[in-house]
Amino acid sequence: MANIQVIKEHTIIRNEAFIAKAEQLKPDLISTEAHPVHLIDVISDPSVVHGWRANVLEPAEELRHKSFGKGDQFILDYGTHLVGYLDEIHIRPVGSPPDAPLHLKITFGEMPIEMAEPFSSYEGWISSSWLQEAVFHVDILPGVITLPRRYSFRYVKFEVIAASQKYRVSFDKIVCRTVTSADISKVMPLMHADELIQKMDEVSIKTLQDCMQLVFEDGPKRDRRLWLGDLRLQALANYETFKNYDLVKRNLYLFAGVPNDKGQITANVFTFSDLIADDTYLLDYSIFFVTTLYDYYMVSQDLETLTELWPLALKQIEIAFDYLDERRLIQDSNSWYSFIDWNQDLNKQAPTQGVLIYALRIAIRIAEIVDRNTVETLKQQLDLLVESAKAHLWDEAAGFFVSGVDRQVSWASQIWMVLAEVWEPHKNKELLTRLLDVNPVVGVTTPYLYHHLVEALILVGEKEVAINQMKAYWGEMIADGADTFWELYDPANKSFSPYGDPMINSYCHAWSCTPTYLIRKYNL
Amino acid sequence: MANIQVIKEHTIIRNEAFIAKAEQLKPDLISTEAHPVHLIDVISDPSVVHGWRANVLEPAEELRHKSFGKGDQFILDYGTHLVGYLDEIHIRPVGSPPDAPLHLKITFGEMPIEMAEPFSSYEGWISSSWLQEAVFHVDILPGVITLPRRYSFRYVKFEVIAASQKYRVSFDKIVCRTVTSADISKVMPLMHADELIQKMDEVSIKTLQDCMQLVFEDGPKRDRRLWLGDLRLQALANYETFKNYDLVKRNLYLFAGVPNDKGQITANVFTFSDLIADDTYLLDYSIFFVTTLYDYYMVSQDLETLTELWPLALKQIEIAFDYLDERRLIQDSNSWYSFIDWNQDLNKQAPTQGVLIYALRIAIRIAEIVDRNTVETLKQQLDLLVESAKAHLWDEAAGFFVSGVDRQVSWASQIWMVLAEVWEPHKNKELLTRLLDVNPVVGVTTPYLYHHLVEALILVGEKEVAINQMKAYWGEMIADGADTFWELYDPANKSFSPYGDPMINSYCHAWSCTPTYLIRKYNL
Repeated sequence: MANIQVIKEHTIIRNEAFIAKAEQLKPDLISTEAHPVHLIDVISDPSVVHGWRANVLEPAEELRHKSFGKGDQFILDYGTHLVGYLDEIHIRPVGSPPDAPLHLKITFGEMPIEMAEPFSSYEGWISSSWLQEAVFHVDILPGVITLPRRYSFRYVKFEVIAASQKYRVSFDKIVCRTVTSADISKVMPLMHADELIQKMDEVSIKTLQDCMQLVFEDGPKRDRRLWLGDLRLQALANYETFKNYDLVKRNLYLFAGVPNDKGQITANVFTFSDLIADDTYLLDYSIFFVTTLYDYYMVSQDLETLTELWPLALKQIEIAFDYLDERRLIQDSNSWYSFIDWNQDLNKQAPTQGVLIYALRIAIRIAEIVDRNTVETLKQQLDLLVESAKAHLWDEAAGFFVSGVDRQVSWASQIWMVLAEVWEPHKNKELLTRLLDVNPVVGVTTPYLYHHLVEALILVGEKEVAINQMKAYWGEMIADGADTFWELYDPANKSFSPYGDPMINSYCHAWSCTPTYLIRKYNL
Repeated sequence: MANIQVIKEHTIIRNEAFIAKAEQLKPDLISTEAHPVHLIDVISDPSVVHGWRANVLEPAEELRHKSFGKGDQFILDYGTHLVGYLDEIHIRPVGSPPDAPLHLKITFGEMPIEMAEPFSSYEGWISSSWLQEAVFHVDILPGVITLPRRYSFRYVKFEVIAASQKYRVSFDKIVCRTVTSADISKVMPLMHADELIQKMDEVSIKTLQDCMQLVFEDGPKRDRRLWLGDLRLQALANYETFKNYDLVKRNLYLFAGVPNDKGQITANVFTFSDLIADDTYLLDYSIFFVTTLYDYYMVSQDLETLTELWPLALKQIEIAFDYLDERRLIQDSNSWYSFIDWNQDLNKQAPTQGVLIYALRIAIRIAEIVDRNTVETLKQQLDLLVESAKAHLWDEAAGFFVSGVDRQVSWASQIWMVLAEVWEPHKNKELLTRLLDVNPVVGVTTPYLYHHLVEALILVGEKEVAINQMKAYWGEMIADGADTFWELYDPANKSFSPYGDPMINSYCHAWSCTPTYLIRKYNL
């Protein structure tokens, strides 16, 4: 099933001053050259994720001694995840002068499955156009080809669709020019005694680095755009590592530049050419504008930005109030109005109530700095929302928060109600412990919600449990071969994809980069 | 079966002065805009060539009112054959902001069959890379796309491989920028009373125009290069129409710039970037350097070029003498040493002997102008060759020239022996009349040899028969839908292809453009 919103009448009120501010903050990209390490093939192996394993054949230097004709192929392994351009493909004809164009197909993959299964077999519901390939003709040989599009990959497959009977081709050099706006020299070494924690930190940083481009992208392979929920987590990881505050500021102003006519901030913006607000509005994501702004202020002490963007942040809280029913509960709904997690079975009412309470506490802190007149009103609202959650969403017999008309007990509801501190610390801690014991069926499907579970455990003082959870999740992803952390991972169902095909999953995804934040911020 | 030569040790002696002269003569291309006329589909119809017919649906102006999603397609008909670039493809998204790249496939066709049958079904022996298609992603919409490669087409099929559930695309304008070095304003109007002759003249000129680029290409779709045999005929048609003498001169110097270490001129050169001689040597083609040079001199009176290139022209004759056996006959061979016609069954001995005698007569005329000392020797050789042909290749009982050890009677042998004027005019005429009457099995497969048949008929004074042959051949091609004349055409076997698949045939081919020459030169 597709979770999409399509809004026919979508009016955006552009704030050109904000957009200009964002434009001024556009970063320069840092570029490096990367070269392939190995020639590989991919082997069917049911014991690994998605059933395909990379198998090293020989050093990549051997490539230039080989030649390829119609139907031949080879696969390069660049040794780790890269984001960039195939800038120099040096192709040399072997044999007679080329009497016909060269017809080439190049396939990029973050994972071995993308090298193994034909893209034509893809049947997911999001567009196959995200699958990364280039098919083209070369009229002049020898030549150096540059592919114009940016790709996200570790593996590259070359297939000669056609040369001719009179010539074959050799590849002397295939250089990738990587790009990122993250300056790795700014990152303090961690030197953790626990090897797995050290490794989780490194993979997190690589993930964030590859997602940091002209904006904080969600995934450099897919969707390559700026989502508010992802931005919030990337910004937190960035503060502990690359410390690029201006990029966060730029991204806040991009969102602030294109609210709709009700003042709501879109869940994501497109920034490929002109700035465009997507017609997708997710209540939790809009609310996170408040917390992202506050987090930015706390590290940057940029009072001017906090003051300038506060009215729009407050607006997101007010819009959320419009979603409340007469009992001051987020209205129960089957529509895709709030994100929380990629889980079709999840009822969003209680977790969204949790997000709102969580953000309202932060809104009050901002108001105390820049808008003291509003503080009292917000505090009254906060009390009402908390009381309402306790009165209507808490099931004393079960010892869990419930959500929706069917009183669903989910992990998401408990996690967000803990982060919202609806109960006092002791009861909060009991709730989380119970959650881990009872293990309700409606679980956690994304690193995004997993992050919030870990942060909730840290909040209630369960650092050791938090570390174990991280190791069981991100650590297991590393054991399964992650060079960068994946968009989706379920240790119990490793080929899970909410899109209908794991080939389209993003294997370097912003919302998965938080272990470095958790480790460094909380000295795990 | 593939007719190809591959020479492992191929030494070229570059004449940089000649190459520089050719470079200085590089023409400017004339460019015009072309717009599609109709939206069409293609319909299976066994009564038409290759079994596919274009069916007009509606005016192309309707295109911009339509939108296309995943799996949708449309076909444009530009109304006639074009050579050029799809310079402006204006694409507009319809619906939500594009949340995934657009994945497009564009297929170009000179003939409806190229719009109907998937290129993946192609199984011919020359490279499928000549089939014209472009598959690519568009990341930024709306946008104006320019395809970098030049195409040769009348029809263009657009297929949306993928957009997304949130948007479709519309095409506001799809402009082709045509290119040619032929200036149509230089062509004198013909105004022939016979409509079919008038039409043959027009289609010839269009064919030549589309093949005249930076060199005289054989076919703008395939192979896009300069072949000596094709050049000779194009030059003749050009003298009667566009009168671009400099382009012929440039092409003569290109060939003269890259002989091999024996002094032989290659059958064709590549001129896409650096000038490269193909490792294909065809005796008849090399010999035609002599006649092409002489034809050029006759129209241009460029004595300097005639003088400068004569030694190399003479060298081609001398090299041909090396092919002679002790009886002064071209050695019989099964290898692909001479072109004559695309006919696997054809023995090349007698027709190549004819070509050599034909060219030797012309060499003598050049020698009389620039190298009188050589005239007598050449005349002696001519007499010996003629005598040898009469003595060993003429079958008095049959009344035909025979070729090879199996004494093959072919159309090609008679045609070239007539053009070589081995017999006196009366006997020459009888021979051709007998050829048409008896109709030997080893016939004519290409417009290239058909041209020589017509020229032979004119030589013996059979103008009416010549006109009837032209009408039965090029006229029939027009009846079969030719906008430009085709590389290959057999009225008795209309899907003939020497390459194993008619999809790869060239449908605008230089060697087929000679009716305008024949009509205008001989006042048909």
